[in-house]
Amino acid sequence: MKPIVWDKGCLRLLDQTKLPLEEKIIECRDYQSVADAIREMRVRGAPAIGAAAAYGMVIGARGIDAGDKKQWFKELEKVAETLKNTRPTAVNLTWAVDRMLKKAEENKHLGIRELQDILENEAVKIAREDVESNYAIGRFGNTLVPERARILTHCNAGALATVGYGTALGIVRAAHASGKDIHVFAGETRPFLQGARLTVWELMKEGIEVTLITDNMAGYVMAKGMVDLVIVGADRIASNGDVANKIGTYSLAVLAKENNIPFYVAAPLSTIDMSLSSGEEIPIEERAPDEVLYIQGRAIAPEGVKVFNPAFDITPNSLITAIITDKGVIKEPYDKNLKALFSDGTRGNN
Amino acid sequence: MKPIVWDKGCLRLLDQTKLPLEEKIIECRDYQSVADAIREMRVRGAPAIGAAAAYGMVIGARGIDAGDKKQWFKELEKVAETLKNTRPTAVNLTWAVDRMLKKAEENKHLGIRELQDILENEAVKIAREDVESNYAIGRFGNTLVPERARILTHCNAGALATVGYGTALGIVRAAHASGKDIHVFAGETRPFLQGARLTVWELMKEGIEVTLITDNMAGYVMAKGMVDLVIVGADRIASNGDVANKIGTYSLAVLAKENNIPFYVAAPLSTIDMSLSSGEEIPIEERAPDEVLYIQGRAIAPEGVKVFNPAFDITPNSLITAIITDKGVIKEPYDKNLKALFSDGTRGNN
Repeated sequence: MKPIVWDKGCLRLLDQTKLPLEEKIIECRDYQSVADAIREMRVRGAPAIGAAAAYGMVIGARGIDAGDKKQWFKELEKVAETLKNTRPTAVNLTWAVDRMLKKAEENKHLGIRELQDILENEAVKIAREDVESNYAIGRFGNTLVPERARILTHCNAGALATVGYGTALGIVRAAHASGKDIHVFAGETRPFLQGARLTVWELMKEGIEVTLITDNMAGYVMAKGMVDLVIVGADRIASNGDVANKIGTYSLAVLAKENNIPFYVAAPLSTIDMSLSSGEEIPIEERAPDEVLYIQGRAIAPEGVKVFNPAFDITPNSLITAIITDKGVIKEPYDKNLKALFSDGTRGNN
Repeated sequence: MKPIVWDKGCLRLLDQTKLPLEEKIIECRDYQSVADAIREMRVRGAPAIGAAAAYGMVIGARGIDAGDKKQWFKELEKVAETLKNTRPTAVNLTWAVDRMLKKAEENKHLGIRELQDILENEAVKIAREDVESNYAIGRFGNTLVPERARILTHCNAGALATVGYGTALGIVRAAHASGKDIHVFAGETRPFLQGARLTVWELMKEGIEVTLITDNMAGYVMAKGMVDLVIVGADRIASNGDVANKIGTYSLAVLAKENNIPFYVAAPLSTIDMSLSSGEEIPIEERAPDEVLYIQGRAIAPEGVKVFNPAFDITPNSLITAIITDKGVIKEPYDKNLKALFSDGTRGNN
């Protein structure tokens, strides 16, 4: 399952607005198409949009028509801004684009052609590292998954949300691969239905047992003792461990606490934003009302109704049992333990 | 707004599966059509299906082709069983049908024609009492609604769920009518979308401010301080105050507690089942997977996926700030206070 494929200057994306009814590939040959694909959620998931944006930088860098290197760098900044401005919440987007800019800056003594090649190498590296991170998250997370575990997840933090394998679903894959007889409850995740459309599709392809529920059934299945643990992904994690993730995550965390069920967040270090002291500082994207009002093109509510459509929410650190990163399992106190994670010279946003 | 109209032997129902896109009336001229309409949720909401079933009994009683009164009573029992077996959770259904049976039994010395008329009068009385109950609930509930309140509700406990005016939305209507500048958040209520399709439609018709959200946004709007109180209806209330209501209600109650927001349940006495000691004894209906898998006829998930589709959940009494009945506002200890409510000779299920 390869949602993001780099093919000699062309970025091929599996259009996630069309799944599971249609497996359509879109080809991006200019950086604006990459920006559009991110904005329209044809590619989505924090790590995935980071990698896509990195490739968008490569396409943009190769397409710049500049008289000299100074102008080239100025144009590259514009490409970066366009890509970063597509979606506000996931920090991986900014992280990846800034990493690309930094790479160019570090090599500014070289020629434009060489800089373009260096950027392409860096994007490929970002994509490869993401898959490696997910395998690591899977290994660390699997130590927390009991035999015969019934795992509730939300949205899609799977192969489709990353360059491959997945964060939350990376752990599910690792548990399944290690022979644990697991069962997944997938919340459908309105309004965009990532759970029903993407997570179910991924897990069925993998032969992992999955039951679909609507989001408002999660409390009931927890109260009935049908869930052993909750694992979700993240779009941005503040330095104190507060987590921004798909709308509805906070509700699941509160329900897990009420029912004494462990609540885990799975994310690579590129999702952690050490520049923010708490979740309150994370910008929450509000998307168009039509996402709520229409499902597969059909109206579900009276015309003209007011809609509130926040795409993410904030889960406070106090509701999180552990954050499963590619560098290990982090528990409270999150501020201290996340800081320690970054102090050993690994990459990060601080 | 009249979802249930009795017109000389014909029961006219506003088909709630078609709203808001189409205002279609279905005409039931035999009791099987009434049973079908309840089963298929063309009429839904605990008080509404109670009243519809009462009229179903009238239609059934008039249609019985019996040689003698003994056989007529036996056939009437069959009609009653058919109607009661349509849906298991809402107790108003059993309550209304049993009340009709009791009325017939009390008058068994009379002739069949007279019994038929008596049953018709009783059904009309049940329907009229329901509207009166809702007005009373509205009056009692309005005392708990602050000026400029932002009220979160779930599903549809409105005029469409009753014979008119509504329980939870009866309170909203009363607050609006008394000049309070209120604003309602309507959760869309998957899978059947009663919130998006019915509550929004009702409130817009009434000129009451409403904002539609998906169910998984409720936690976010509460945490953001955008909600002052939650009011929901009920399908069955046990004698200890545990409440069965539309799936997702329990989650809202847990989220309200977490955010120190009052959580109110509005229901007439006919919804209270004093024969059950706790919510654990309330049967929870599971409905067909297709309700989750298709929205307005369009598939939203891969074919063949397993689905769990419980239609209701149980909210424990400890999460409920008060139950607003047509006889007053009941607070804990619910067992003692609900018992007192029924000991003064008013109708009930015990």
